[in-house]
Parts: sequence; structure tokens; C-alpha cells
Amino acid sequence: MTYCVGILVKEGLTMIADTRTNAGLDNVSQYKKLHIFEKPGDRMIAVATAGNLAITQAVLSFLNEGIENKDTGQMETIWTTPSMFKTAQLVGRAVREVYRIDGEALEQSNAGFEVTMLVGGQVAKGRLRLFMVYRQGNFIEATEDTPFLQIGEHKYGKPVLDRAITFATDLIEATKLGLISMDSTMRSNLGVGMPIDLVTVKRDAIAHDILHRIEAGEPYFHDLRERWSAALRAAYRAIPIPPYK
Amino acid sequence: MTYCVGILVKEGLTMIADTRTNAGLDNVSQYKKLHIFEKPGDRMIAVATAGNLAITQAVLSFLNEGIENKDTGQMETIWTTPSMFKTAQLVGRAVREVYRIDGEALEQSNAGFEVTMLVGGQVAKGRLRLFMVYRQGNFIEATEDTPFLQIGEHKYGKPVLDRAITFATDLIEATKLGLISMDSTMRSNLGVGMPIDLVTVKRDAIAHDILHRIEAGEPYFHDLRERWSAALRAAYRAIPIPPYK
Repeated sequence: MTYCVGILVKEGLTMIADTRTNAGLDNVSQYKKLHIFEKPGDRMIAVATAGNLAITQAVLSFLNEGIENKDTGQMETIWTTPSMFKTAQLVGRAVREVYRIDGEALEQSNAGFEVTMLVGGQVAKGRLRLFMVYRQGNFIEATEDTPFLQIGEHKYGKPVLDRAITFATDLIEATKLGLISMDSTMRSNLGVGMPIDLVTVKRDAIAHDILHRIEAGEPYFHDLRERWSAALRAAYRAIPIPPYK
Repeated sequence: MTYCVGILVKEGLTMIADTRTNAGLDNVSQYKKLHIFEKPGDRMIAVATAGNLAITQAVLSFLNEGIENKDTGQMETIWTTPSMFKTAQLVGRAVREVYRIDGEALEQSNAGFEVTMLVGGQVAKGRLRLFMVYRQGNFIEATEDTPFLQIGEHKYGKPVLDRAITFATDLIEATKLGLISMDSTMRSNLGVGMPIDLVTVKRDAIAHDILHRIEAGEPYFHDLRERWSAALRAAYRAIPIPPYK
């Protein structure tokens, strides 16, 4: 399992991903799911992945090695796309290419073809944008009305985002909320685990702001988890008991 | 969709269910999902239902009209079972009977055979118990280690229960936490909606304590929702911002 969240606010973008992959409870490994493609001033793109590891790794290889653009005949990589929209399209084409190669075998074995990706960032003079690419290769975009997108095990960590995130939220506050959302998910699903990778990007900087891996036991995140638990306990205790009879 | 939660603490049992059913977003109705079988001093049983409405209604009809117990040759109803364990078994047999009648047709049409039930309460001199019956007709029981069981759309409302509920929690506090869990679920899934049905049972009372329907706009529940939202906002604001660079 996996949990990744991307939040796009006025000030910038934050993306957070766990690193646990598992094929059964007795086969657990650590793999990076948050991939950075950064050339300051030219592009700062982050791709977060959920789904079958063989598929997501193959997609990433295609993004680096390139796929032929059938319209132009040119090889395109994630380092050469001229905009974030074209980047999301490229990721979608890479997903479709992997499906063309592996989809039939996976579906025949009932393994299914499962992959979802978040693609966020800014290219050259374009806008800072955040997309979610589906297994079919098409995608949606975060907007001012719905400024966050989640992939993987998204339900446990959604209520806190639903209540608190707006497009006007400060970037660092949005990052904190993303970490609280990750904490809620890790507490309820063993398939989502530490360390956690985090990147933030300020609008028009075209470079990362924070790029950090949170290891197990790290003091700030440990403190966040403790404070959030204590605050939730205090919050429900402060609510009057039901008056029903 | 549906959300029902049952919480069994030392002091007693609380069960909470929403009332919204839907077959698509354009076909939404209100049906009771929390059913009470009460004869004070003899039995106080609550059954909460999730899944295909035709199946859950058929199961309830069998519970009232009776199923033959193949071991004894007697017709058994939910009004005559000698213990909660036998009651959970009866519910399981009713589920299997509905599957025998309707299962093949449902599976052939790809509708699937989806049903899960919570069965809680106390019969005569037995213990107060809480079970979750699966679509296969077998069941698990809540224990001191895991004092709550959920059916339907369970993920959004699970984090608050995971953090706060223990077997030692007061019954009225557990009820309040169940309502907070319901609120989180309703905010994130349109398929779960008001009014909410609620029953509490004190251990060894063999009668209900609270039996109440919370209608939309009811002051206490409205206040609980507002306070919980405000407390969450205050809680995340009070956490220091991430120190990462």
C-alpha cells in the first residue's frame, strides 16, 4: 500500500509520500515513491507513485529514457517537456506504453494493472500545477476549489484535509496538514510506513524549497504525532456528552 | 453506502447507524439500518446492516419469521435464541439462506452479494456481546483489545476511534466518539447521511438505555460538529510548523 498527497496552494506546492511497499504482509520493502526532476530555473517536477511497483518503476524509466511523441516524431523525456500539461501527458503516455507491454499478462494473471501518479511542479515560464494521472493515462488537475489530490490509501487521511485545506492556506501550514494526514493514515494502515519523503516548491521559484526525508523517530515528526493525538483527546473530551434519553 | 459502528466498553454497548441508501447518486432514499429486538429482561438485541438493501431486508424478515435449525428441527427467530452467540449464528444462517435463494442471480448479473451486519446486545443471563457477521455467514466478536467494529464506509471514521476508544472508556464518551466518527464519515462520503439512529445498552440491564434518532439540524449534534471542526482547526494551528529546509 501507499499514501501520497499533493497540495497546491496560492504560495506553492507540497508533496508528501511514504516509502513502504508490500507484496503480502510478509514481504515488506522500502522504495522511494517521490521522485524529483529538478533543473533550477528550467524545471522542478515531482512525481509521486502508487500501485504495482513493477509498473511504476517502468513508467519512471520511460520518463527518463524518453518516449517517441507520435505527433512530432521526437523522443520526449521528463527533462524536455515544454510545460506541466505536456509533462502530465508524457506521464500518461508512459503509463499507456507500460500497459501496452505488460497489461495483458497482468490482467490474465488477475494481478490487475494498478497505477496512479501525482505530477506536480513548474516548467520554465508556465504555471505551478498539480495533476493526478490515472491508470488509463488520462488525468485531472488540482484547482482553487479542490487544492489537494491523494493517491493510494487516501481515506483515513482525508477528513483533516477536507476540513482545513483551502487555496489560501500558507504553504508551510499545508505541509503540516499533509504530515498530519500522513500520520492518520499510518496509524490505521500498516501498509503505509516511515520514512516519509517531502518536497515543497514555492510558486515561480522553479526550484525546490524543502526537500527532506523524515526518518522514524525524528523529533519534529514525533512531536507532531504526540501533539495531534493529545489535541484530539482534549478536543473530544471538551465536547459535552450527548443529552439523549 | 452506509456507515455503522458498534462499540463495546466495560459499562455497555453503543451502536450508531446512518439511514441513507443509494443506487447511484440519482436514486437516494432513507431506510432504517439499526433494528431493535427488545423484550426488557429477556433480550435487548440491535442489528445494524450494510450492503445490498434487498439482501438486508430479506435477512431481517428471516430473523423475524424464523429459520429452521437443522440440528433441532425447531423454527428459530431472533425472539427465541437462547444466547447472543446463537443469535449471531442465526443471523449468519439467515444470510446464508438469502444467498442460497438470491446469490446465484446476483452474481450472474455482476451485482455481487454484499452484506455485513453488526449484532449486539444481551440475552437473558448471558453476557453483553457484539459481533460482526460477514456475507459468508461467519462472524467475529469485539473484545477488550478491539472494542469497536465498523461496517460499510469505515475508513474515514476510524482514526478517531483508533486513537480514543478503549474498553475502559465511559459508555457516554464512547457514544460521543461514535458520533464524531459518524460526522467525519458524513463529511467525506455523500452516501452516508442524516438522520442517524443511536442505541445504547448498559451491561446487564437487558433493556435499552438511549434509543434516539438524530434528525438533521438537531442542536446537540450540530454543536458537536461545529465544536469538533473548531477544535481540529485549533489543534493543527497549535502544532509548530515543520523546521525542514
